[in-house]
Amino acid sequence: MPPAPPKMSGSGDRIANETDLIQTYLAPLTGGADGAFGLRDDAAFISPEPGTDLVVTSDPIIAGVHFYPTDTAADVAWKALAVNASDLAAKGARPLAYTLNLAFPEPPTREWMSDFADGLRAAQDSFGCRLIGGDTDMTPGPLSIGVTIIGAVPSGKFVRRQGAASGDHVFATGTIGDSALGLRVHADPLALPDLTVEERAFLEGRYLRPTPRLALGEALRAHASAALDISDGLMKDLARLAGGLGLMLNVDLIPLSKAAAAARTNEPAVTEDILGGGDDYELLVAVPPAAVVDFKNAAETAGVKVCDLGALDANIPLQVVNSDGTPIPFERLGYDHFSRSAQ
Amino acid sequence: MPPAPPKMSGSGDRIANETDLIQTYLAPLTGGADGAFGLRDDAAFISPEPGTDLVVTSDPIIAGVHFYPTDTAADVAWKALAVNASDLAAKGARPLAYTLNLAFPEPPTREWMSDFADGLRAAQDSFGCRLIGGDTDMTPGPLSIGVTIIGAVPSGKFVRRQGAASGDHVFATGTIGDSALGLRVHADPLALPDLTVEERAFLEGRYLRPTPRLALGEALRAHASAALDISDGLMKDLARLAGGLGLMLNVDLIPLSKAAAAARTNEPAVTEDILGGGDDYELLVAVPPAAVVDFKNAAETAGVKVCDLGALDANIPLQVVNSDGTPIPFERLGYDHFSRSAQ
Repeated sequence: MPPAPPKMSGSGDRIANETDLIQTYLAPLTGGADGAFGLRDDAAFISPEPGTDLVVTSDPIIAGVHFYPTDTAADVAWKALAVNASDLAAKGARPLAYTLNLAFPEPPTREWMSDFADGLRAAQDSFGCRLIGGDTDMTPGPLSIGVTIIGAVPSGKFVRRQGAASGDHVFATGTIGDSALGLRVHADPLALPDLTVEERAFLEGRYLRPTPRLALGEALRAHASAALDISDGLMKDLARLAGGLGLMLNVDLIPLSKAAAAARTNEPAVTEDILGGGDDYELLVAVPPAAVVDFKNAAETAGVKVCDLGALDANIPLQVVNSDGTPIPFERLGYDHFSRSAQ
Repeated sequence: MPPAPPKMSGSGDRIANETDLIQTYLAPLTGGADGAFGLRDDAAFISPEPGTDLVVTSDPIIAGVHFYPTDTAADVAWKALAVNASDLAAKGARPLAYTLNLAFPEPPTREWMSDFADGLRAAQDSFGCRLIGGDTDMTPGPLSIGVTIIGAVPSGKFVRRQGAASGDHVFATGTIGDSALGLRVHADPLALPDLTVEERAFLEGRYLRPTPRLALGEALRAHASAALDISDGLMKDLARLAGGLGLMLNVDLIPLSKAAAAARTNEPAVTEDILGGGDDYELLVAVPPAAVVDFKNAAETAGVKVCDLGALDANIPLQVVNSDGTPIPFERLGYDHFSRSAQ
């Protein structure tokens, strides 16, 4: 058994003041970036390269809502940055910098904070950005981690969520549903009992450490009519991308990992997790018919697997069907942040 | 008596879903800004004007920590944006846009949300910026309002916190201590009983609706060697600006409003609130001796009252003295976000 991860509520040497916490654990994450001032100023600045637009998105995660209070600090840190970098990926943008707002229910231990900084370091090195600002507070509520990320796209090349047209093909990156199944495994050691240890670990890893599809940026900017990331569930986000257009989605075309395919074979009800489960952070990309070949080539060059889910059509509804054309009803459209329930 | 403000926990028609809340109350605050997409995309973009740097800062406020859960929604909204705009003011930056992350303990009523949007509208119109993104969540914790604001300065003109030199004069804008006294009045109707109703209302207003000193931007960029806003208390923030240099501060030079002066006359212990109380959101500005006259003229042109607190000196400590030169001891240096206590 690996040693238990440091807990927010564990014993250990607690960090007594804000300056110590920021300078010891967070300031090194600026990497000496110009404009971050070692986190010793009230604000930071970014000098945009000429000919770029800056892309901004902000998505906090809260203990008990978006992650388990018992998750390791490094995993939580990774996820806090990854969910924001994923939004940039969907816009064809390259991450530059982020601010971090931490609200703690109690002062963290040095061990927890060190683990948290390690997770941030791994994520920012992977995504290519640096910490430039933020603040810390104490809160009577749960641990909350607020990241605002800033990226760059060549001027006018921001890839919008709206913009898909009838006839455009919809591509999904990677594999779908791993994260929803990984959450089941993570929450319940007895879930999906027919999977191997490796399959369960793979799914859990996909839930805990999602990979923003930043590598696809150039392909998106060149060929996509619209894109978004799958954060709230395949069908809910597909409906958003479709923007009122329809698509007949053959369930067997949905790209599955070996582990998710095995889970579905063992337990057909898993199909609902695949259609409605959130947190995949794969991309859905609409591509005009004339650009499909070039897009697939560009994705291959970028090393990102993409799968054609079919064409949008103004004259049909959005529906999921079996290979023989029989419709699959689904009740669970996806996650709604606000009602805190799947709907 | 005015009607009671709508309460988060009051009765009334509650908003059942995220899209309704965002589209009804928040999307109008984008003012149709390019790049905000009516809050219907995953991210927003900003096209920086050539020759500008973008300035970023992020400071959430949490119910029970930074404001009272019973405060009106409009006041809370104003403050959430004002504390961030104040950081831009201290850097000589002009606000452009902000993202907003709302975490609700329960779905708000329409009345509360409408009042909140009114407060944001008033603040953003006053500060010259627009909403471009963010998100909403439910939380098991208290109401939390996270603003990240983005502003612009001419390239290379960001005014740093560090940079003051021995001999530079330190100026304070406006009047100091009103907010700390306003908080006392706001929290306790029996506090400062010798003040008039108007004086108490003035102080409370200064606490609830601070004014970021954005008008001073040009004067700062042209003449300041360093600046910051007074958020954690005059002496704590003065020590930050001084960066190890000393200053002999004559307590009678600290600019006071008529109401704060009356409070101090009635109750000399109020001096400690003036020296250590936070939330003033006035600026402290270091100005080299050769630029003092020009700075004062520029401030007058901008319509912002500034007061010379004396010169920084590498050979003396930072201390507060009476007019006759006797030192005033002060224990309470200012607010520490992290320990949640004055220190």
